[in-house]
Amino acid sequence: MTLYYSVLVIGGGLIGSSIARAIKNKNLADRIYIADVSSDACGVLRTLDIADEVSEDYNDYLERADLIVLATPPGVMKTIGASVVEGMKTGAVLTDVGSIKLDIVRHFEPFLRSDIHFIPGHPIAGTENSGPAAGFAELFEDRWCILTPGENVDEAEVERLTDLWESMGSQVALMDAGRHDIVLATTSHVPHLIAYTLVGTAMDMETVTRNDVVKYSAGGFRDFTRIAASDPEMWRDVFMQNKDGVLEVVDRFIEDLSALKRAIRWDDADTLMEHFSKTRDIRRHIVDAGQDTDKPDFGREP
Amino acid sequence: MTLYYSVLVIGGGLIGSSIARAIKNKNLADRIYIADVSSDACGVLRTLDIADEVSEDYNDYLERADLIVLATPPGVMKTIGASVVEGMKTGAVLTDVGSIKLDIVRHFEPFLRSDIHFIPGHPIAGTENSGPAAGFAELFEDRWCILTPGENVDEAEVERLTDLWESMGSQVALMDAGRHDIVLATTSHVPHLIAYTLVGTAMDMETVTRNDVVKYSAGGFRDFTRIAASDPEMWRDVFMQNKDGVLEVVDRFIEDLSALKRAIRWDDADTLMEHFSKTRDIRRHIVDAGQDTDKPDFGREP
Repeated sequence: MTLYYSVLVIGGGLIGSSIARAIKNKNLADRIYIADVSSDACGVLRTLDIADEVSEDYNDYLERADLIVLATPPGVMKTIGASVVEGMKTGAVLTDVGSIKLDIVRHFEPFLRSDIHFIPGHPIAGTENSGPAAGFAELFEDRWCILTPGENVDEAEVERLTDLWESMGSQVALMDAGRHDIVLATTSHVPHLIAYTLVGTAMDMETVTRNDVVKYSAGGFRDFTRIAASDPEMWRDVFMQNKDGVLEVVDRFIEDLSALKRAIRWDDADTLMEHFSKTRDIRRHIVDAGQDTDKPDFGREP
Repeated sequence: MTLYYSVLVIGGGLIGSSIARAIKNKNLADRIYIADVSSDACGVLRTLDIADEVSEDYNDYLERADLIVLATPPGVMKTIGASVVEGMKTGAVLTDVGSIKLDIVRHFEPFLRSDIHFIPGHPIAGTENSGPAAGFAELFEDRWCILTPGENVDEAEVERLTDLWESMGSQVALMDAGRHDIVLATTSHVPHLIAYTLVGTAMDMETVTRNDVVKYSAGGFRDFTRIAASDPEMWRDVFMQNKDGVLEVVDRFIEDLSALKRAIRWDDADTLMEHFSKTRDIRRHIVDAGQDTDKPDFGREP
């Protein structure tokens, strides 16, 4: 049995197209529509055959959709938000897949309607690739999806959306938007900011050539370049929209790095050893929780 | 035809045991000896059947070895260095696999003998696992190995050691020890220091639980935990022995991070976008150079 009659995905990139694929594969909706402002993306989406209809204009499907998934960059969500809400049919559900929740909740509050259900969401899944062709139906399997419904949202609709994500293979957690943002600043946003920074630092060293960096990247650097190859537009928006959370965690990080720097400068072997030993433990928990492979080198082929 | 009659590997962990495996698999020596101070490690090494003889005492094999490979933690190399050099037979070659070269070169200089050949080396390869059972013969395939011979070292011996590494599947680069250290600080040591720091910062956040960090690690954090799960003792030694190189690169990194932090605070979208776009390019070069896979998520299984 399908969970929704009709689903509209706005934004057919990596995440949006993967949602459409998963809904189609698992038969979770009777009709799937995708809207993407790029005519090139629409062309690709049509050849992928993952939606009943594809259009450059979401207005073509707004009135027909029981569930609308905003899967655009977060800046675009804010630009089109009021127009999307205005065009929705009574009783429909609006969700999103943005990496920051407080900023979106605050933006949507002034124009939300009492006859629709707004349930912000965030699937913790992704790859370094972007665009409709990069998506795949299994992207959400064994990953977490966080939903941050407001206090007055219909519980039955929260359960139905939870069912959808679970049917796509995810585990679902509910929490408030503010807590979501500081947790994600720690586990995702600041790691990305640091990776972008380090790759830039390496590129600017006068004594180290671009060629050196490429050749010897297997020593650790390549893992940072993978993270720093993520979609620049998306991450610019993430950092600006979760400014408070990101700056709080970055400041703590710089404090901690300065302390380790000092330990290196003063040959404080005990402080270094103590710090490096305690961080090892968390890795084991992540592997035990099924959030990463324990194969050497992530299972990269030798 | 074998390249050396007899090889002694001192230290049978991930790197040392992988070298023994590769030498045995490719038939690059007639005799392979492994010495490891740990009796437990020796027990494992004997069951692996990758050496002709295994002992807790390297003195058992010093006089017989044509090539000695120091594959212990760098601190141990310095402790045993003079004793190893003293026991070597005339004409034999001494190399190592340490991550820092200037510190080792400076330490060995006072007691080197003119009748042996000292050719420091560094294979850029590894996984997050350690110990003899974690090794595998293919570890060095398609990886770089840097050799840093002094100016007066016999060229024929440098070529023979180059042949050995190439036969184990590596590409070999020659450079001076000082340049090696700043290149590696950039591509390996500082990435590890940053990963250790960030994992520690996340563990100490009051508002984010250990459970949150584990659950939502797929957003980027898990890649840092993999790096921060590397052998603590080895990395403590690396940072202290490449102090100048590490501190130089860390200072540049903190400057750059502070500039991006400022751009976030002041909503400077253009600076962020410019920075994030330029770092994407280097990823493509790394994949093109065969130093990483371009599969989504490093080829992790969905």
